[in-house]
Amino acid sequence: MKVLITGGAGFLGQRLARDLLARGALRKTLQNAGTPEPITELILLDTTPAASPLPDDARVRVETGDVADRAVLERLIDTETAVIFHLAAILSAEAEAEFDLGLRINLDGTRALLEVCRARGHHPRLVFTSSVAVYGGALPEEVQDDTALDPQSSYGVQKAMAELLIGDYSRRGFVDGRVLRLPTVAVRPGRPSGAASSFASGIVREALNGETAVCPVSGSTSIWLLSPRKAVQCLVTASEIDAQALGTRRIVNLPGVSTTVDEMIEELSKFGGLKAVGRVEWVPDEVIERIVSSWPSSWNVTRAKKLGFSGDASFHAIVKAYVEDELPWAEKKRA
Amino acid sequence: MKVLITGGAGFLGQRLARDLLARGALRKTLQNAGTPEPITELILLDTTPAASPLPDDARVRVETGDVADRAVLERLIDTETAVIFHLAAILSAEAEAEFDLGLRINLDGTRALLEVCRARGHHPRLVFTSSVAVYGGALPEEVQDDTALDPQSSYGVQKAMAELLIGDYSRRGFVDGRVLRLPTVAVRPGRPSGAASSFASGIVREALNGETAVCPVSGSTSIWLLSPRKAVQCLVTASEIDAQALGTRRIVNLPGVSTTVDEMIEELSKFGGLKAVGRVEWVPDEVIERIVSSWPSSWNVTRAKKLGFSGDASFHAIVKAYVEDELPWAEKKRA
Repeated sequence: MKVLITGGAGFLGQRLARDLLARGALRKTLQNAGTPEPITELILLDTTPAASPLPDDARVRVETGDVADRAVLERLIDTETAVIFHLAAILSAEAEAEFDLGLRINLDGTRALLEVCRARGHHPRLVFTSSVAVYGGALPEEVQDDTALDPQSSYGVQKAMAELLIGDYSRRGFVDGRVLRLPTVAVRPGRPSGAASSFASGIVREALNGETAVCPVSGSTSIWLLSPRKAVQCLVTASEIDAQALGTRRIVNLPGVSTTVDEMIEELSKFGGLKAVGRVEWVPDEVIERIVSSWPSSWNVTRAKKLGFSGDASFHAIVKAYVEDELPWAEKKRA
Repeated sequence: MKVLITGGAGFLGQRLARDLLARGALRKTLQNAGTPEPITELILLDTTPAASPLPDDARVRVETGDVADRAVLERLIDTETAVIFHLAAILSAEAEAEFDLGLRINLDGTRALLEVCRARGHHPRLVFTSSVAVYGGALPEEVQDDTALDPQSSYGVQKAMAELLIGDYSRRGFVDGRVLRLPTVAVRPGRPSGAASSFASGIVREALNGETAVCPVSGSTSIWLLSPRKAVQCLVTASEIDAQALGTRRIVNLPGVSTTVDEMIEELSKFGGLKAVGRVEWVPDEVIERIVSSWPSSWNVTRAKKLGFSGDASFHAIVKAYVEDELPWAEKKRA
């Protein structure tokens, strides 16, 4: 089978690609332990090439192009394209600053993708990453599956619209959509991103790396987190799950870990000592604070767990996974 | 001030136009009893002219064009356009049958309108008609303001997407949006519409008019109704209300009357006798039944009432209003 990843040069796209190549195959069902089907081609679409390319692999095809450009998608998607991971997005802070760009990529890009799949007529599996940002306004302590969406950012609005569209294209049988609402994915390696929650990675990553880390929100701010490792695992699970298990509801609120920024700093001290904690600079940013504090800090994960998705055990486990995956030298030093 | 009605040749658009012309002015605030501002121009945009044109009036300008065609909107909207009633829509059954057309008018049309307003930069009041159809799936007995949307039709999905977009354009200060979720508007005069709920008018209208009326759903089906009279009143209220009263939540679930089809038939017998009841033909339609039964049959109207919106007293009052407004001869016969 062919697999397409949009946003394939992004952090999550690259990490997913590595995982898929290592796995070599995807199952068509989780319930009946169906035979895995080999991935013959893995197409990575993005606007720019990845910072550090994947190791040479005959299955990988890197394509440069705009996900909102239908002609690009028509070139990449055919009836052999069994699974599409649609990760391409303008992230929260950037979509707030660049309204038109956000609409074009987050909404029009998703629609173009759905339309090309519909035209092909082969009903591919489409895994879409949505976000905590679809929620907002007055929220219960723990968000439920039937809590209304009231997004307070353009990013959240665009993701909510894309969710609705994927739901309708799925109901009509044009695609087999699976929408994952992701907690904030942290700790990410690399550089700060266009996400309002970028600091959640930064205050661990930069501080452990001997650099200054800026924290734009107060210590009492609660966030709902998922490690990159678990995020990739959930993406794979979403692609393998049976459509029947989802029923008419195509959306899954993924498991997360609820933590405050203060608790994150506490954890940072365990891995990097007070030296690392001292590298965190508190520079309040009203826009970031408003966006991040509108998100739920926890939601009910009963449905996700029942469907086979799993999250992290604790924020400690998240930082530990980051150190293992990205800072093996630090791990060695600690050992 | 200039006022624009999209879908101006439709039943509700025409009725609203008559009301606005009679009123002659709209207030800029309801709270402080502000001075009404005269309507100097009333533009009615639609794809085709109205079946029976409005009486000659120098303020009225009838324009033919497509609401999804930005050039048309650019011609009609300038910085004097203080209030826009955006009623143009492909209705539920038609949007289910004509997927692309529904997306183009219900989503792209709304977006084009928002974009032209944004380009003008004068922050006009925009009153948008949404619908019961944004709800669906497992619903509580009485839908609350914070009940999640789970639309089960393309129409409902498109309306929900438009709601989100209007909310974001309002939050960003591009328009001053007011979204009304309307119950099924009945009893409408004229011919059957493209709405799945068209029968709710038909079983009264046709039956009273001596014609055969087709009912595609079972007698136990519950519906949530609003008379055209009250719908127009609510549209005017929405245009006059203070933005501050709405706060960040731009959506209002309008008052309705919850009734079953059996109760409607019972009421029909009071106005038209058993003869009228005998004209109702029961021809089940699976698609219509599925769509209509996915809608809530009642929702909490606390917020609407607090904001100054009012609905009908009973289904009896709705039929009575229809007879008074549309069948004065029947009224005379009964008197």
